[in-house]
Amino acid sequence: MTAVREIRLKSRPSGLPTADNFEVATVDLPDPAAGEVQVRNLWMTVDPYMRGRMNDVKSYSPPFQLGKAMDGGAVGEVTASNAPGFSVGDLVQSNLGWREGYNAPAAGVQKVDTMGLPPQAFLGVAGMPGLTAYVGLLRIAGLKDGDVVFVSGAAGAVGSLVCQIAKAKGHTVIGSAGGPQKVAFLKEIGVDHAIDYKAETDLSAAVMAAAPDGIDVYFENVGGAHLEAALNAARLRARFAICGMISIYNATEPQPGPRNLALLIGKNIRMEGFIVSNHWDMMADFHRDLAAWVRDGKVKWKETVFEGIERAPDAFLGLFKGENLGKMLVKLA
Amino acid sequence: MTAVREIRLKSRPSGLPTADNFEVATVDLPDPAAGEVQVRNLWMTVDPYMRGRMNDVKSYSPPFQLGKAMDGGAVGEVTASNAPGFSVGDLVQSNLGWREGYNAPAAGVQKVDTMGLPPQAFLGVAGMPGLTAYVGLLRIAGLKDGDVVFVSGAAGAVGSLVCQIAKAKGHTVIGSAGGPQKVAFLKEIGVDHAIDYKAETDLSAAVMAAAPDGIDVYFENVGGAHLEAALNAARLRARFAICGMISIYNATEPQPGPRNLALLIGKNIRMEGFIVSNHWDMMADFHRDLAAWVRDGKVKWKETVFEGIERAPDAFLGLFKGENLGKMLVKLA
Repeated sequence: MTAVREIRLKSRPSGLPTADNFEVATVDLPDPAAGEVQVRNLWMTVDPYMRGRMNDVKSYSPPFQLGKAMDGGAVGEVTASNAPGFSVGDLVQSNLGWREGYNAPAAGVQKVDTMGLPPQAFLGVAGMPGLTAYVGLLRIAGLKDGDVVFVSGAAGAVGSLVCQIAKAKGHTVIGSAGGPQKVAFLKEIGVDHAIDYKAETDLSAAVMAAAPDGIDVYFENVGGAHLEAALNAARLRARFAICGMISIYNATEPQPGPRNLALLIGKNIRMEGFIVSNHWDMMADFHRDLAAWVRDGKVKWKETVFEGIERAPDAFLGLFKGENLGKMLVKLA
Repeated sequence: MTAVREIRLKSRPSGLPTADNFEVATVDLPDPAAGEVQVRNLWMTVDPYMRGRMNDVKSYSPPFQLGKAMDGGAVGEVTASNAPGFSVGDLVQSNLGWREGYNAPAAGVQKVDTMGLPPQAFLGVAGMPGLTAYVGLLRIAGLKDGDVVFVSGAAGAVGSLVCQIAKAKGHTVIGSAGGPQKVAFLKEIGVDHAIDYKAETDLSAAVMAAAPDGIDVYFENVGGAHLEAALNAARLRARFAICGMISIYNATEPQPGPRNLALLIGKNIRMEGFIVSNHWDMMADFHRDLAAWVRDGKVKWKETVFEGIERAPDAFLGLFKGENLGKMLVKLA
């Protein structure tokens, strides 16, 4: 028997979640049953999409259950195996985050080939956020030669990779993020025009100053004023990949959409929403390209790390305060 | 010398235009110069997009000039020719509407092959509105087998053809229009579920009741509450062809966009704006298909006709009051 702690959803938030919505519980793991492995989680991820799962609403990802452990991406190490093909010490990833350890059927975990990257990279640059950037920029927005690219949430896990993929392919990139530390990071990764949106009174003017001839591609992580600015700055036949709208996830009332949406018509703009789970088919191409970009020094990443399962709610809440630079992670062991 | 009347833009409207924004003037046409034809207009069109041209704002179509005759689609008859290839009595179309007649270089007019249709059809079902319906439904929305189609402004010149093309191709069609007369027309042209939006308090509920499994294609002519309803009712991977947003053209303040735009993400919706003038390449296919549909009784159309150039402003203003059933036209001779 092994005692592990887990984070449960105690109550559903209205608006911005607080620490009171979570509780820590301890459970005892028996030895793994036949066909199971026992895993000690090393890292877990917190992501903006999880906010939606705190509501009791049907969506593309099922809601978290009250009084039950939450879940999400995690990377861990096999500590006991009762399943063929898994040995103690194997590195595995799973959707059983928000807990220090678990028993699971072998089919519920995947072995990780690290390609020389640290394990937690598979929760960020080499994992779901990385693939999200790749899919959104290349498949959804259909990046092509000469495109000028605008990225909101550009210092985040997804946004910072979007910027770097576009730079690796030779594009002019405008990135928006909040605060001088993030802007400094954007410059470090080669973004041509880094906008501190918290310091701008007119975001449209700032984007148009950075891209006097307009933008061809917009990668949307934020919503609200950023989307209006992108519509204003868009060139004819611009393509918008709509990945997230973190600015409105905690709204208790529906938030109005952009006031300039009719610009879609005259500018022939295409806006397309997507979720990465419909695009696993691109994973192999993504890993091949990523390995090359990392080797050539074209992709860097940052992590913001909270330590200990008890800090997981703080890490999650920090996403909505813009506390993360790059991927927000919780180190569990 | 021939005296003809024309409508000039007297002042620019703020919000809904009024009769005061227009004036009638009479000009004398000399005999046509070498290479010119003289044309007597038989019909002219008024279209919602012309509202944008009354503002002094750069857009895809240049603004009308104060004190000058307005312009737009017209069909007329050659009354004098000083150009090779044109004879008295030839039927021609041009962009020289809003006037009873004109002299123009031969290159500024096009001979019309009527395909057995009445001349004014080339301002409606067989003209720009018709091609708009065809392009938006087939190219922009990418209509495919099994799609459930929702059309706003469904009784208008564009919308009613969208409905009929979709029906001719075997689709379930939901159409929204304002008032019992328009709803009766929608039923007449075979729309499966005709919604009178003026009689509905919850448009989303009405669309979802008509399409319990959701919609795959939305053809947008209206904006506002219709776009919110379409987003709510959309099925996974729905495609929205954004053709117009007549509900907001006269707004003096920017109008908020849909409050549920974030549904684009989880539902993987694609929204694409378009203007027909980028798609003239489809005209031959459109005319071929239209001729077959008309022959087979699959396409009908309505006209709302105002008579006399002096009524042209009233016809135009009527568009924003929903006074037209089918194509709004002005008969000039």
